[in-house]
Amino acid sequence: MVRLDDDALEATRTMTDQALPGLVVVDEHGGPLVVLPASEVLRFALPEYVEEDPALARVYGEREADNFCSELVGRKVRELMPGKQYLPKRERDRPVVTANATLIEIASVMTRQHSPVVAVVDDDEILGVITVHRLLGVALPRS
Amino acid sequence: MVRLDDDALEATRTMTDQALPGLVVVDEHGGPLVVLPASEVLRFALPEYVEEDPALARVYGEREADNFCSELVGRKVRELMPGKQYLPKRERDRPVVTANATLIEIASVMTRQHSPVVAVVDDDEILGVITVHRLLGVALPRS
Repeated sequence: MVRLDDDALEATRTMTDQALPGLVVVDEHGGPLVVLPASEVLRFALPEYVEEDPALARVYGEREADNFCSELVGRKVRELMPGKQYLPKRERDRPVVTANATLIEIASVMTRQHSPVVAVVDDDEILGVITVHRLLGVALPRS
Repeated sequence: MVRLDDDALEATRTMTDQALPGLVVVDEHGGPLVVLPASEVLRFALPEYVEEDPALARVYGEREADNFCSELVGRKVRELMPGKQYLPKRERDRPVVTANATLIEIASVMTRQHSPVVAVVDDDEILGVITVHRLLGVALPRS
């Protein structure tokens, strides 16, 4: 879980080092703002025109292209949030479940939202985060 | 990487145990058929009507709901592949990069396809797999 005023580079590094499948960005009151799968956290570092047209990623020289994460240095999560068009518009499109959701409900939210992470929320308060690996760790039949 | 005739439960368990962000399913000739992020691997276990309408996940009793992965027992990957409607239709919608792709090109493919895994392919042959964590591990500026 990260806050809007957290350092973007540090947040990304934590996710990478701990092999977390994504980040949950919370607002000032701790309410979940958005759940970002790791593949979407990459948008922190991508220039907007590359998000819009991946072909533009090819215009970079190799050295510059491989340094694209330098964009993160000294920036806050707030500054690097993906554009509104990449965030869910409707409440039911957010990877969020209630505390009494069953495993199959959680699984169906994950697959539908293409999200390896869901936030567990009760009365707009975030109770925790469930990853797809945690879910499968519990749900897979033992050998 | 898994093959169509591999055991589905074993494949899912390997992904879970090794905290892999997804699976690459290859065909008989080793060509990459589809790249499945972990959230999509869950579809292996979900009945098709739940994929279509997640509200139906709520009709299960708790015990049955929590046992949904028992679907995987004794099944092959081939039998549990997500329906065609969930697979990319166009070549450029597949999370695949060529061997000379730069880091920013790989990042833009991952964000666009919402895939934490891409297959590196040369002449229809799969050379390897890159995860978002591996990409960030290389691309993040050192502290």
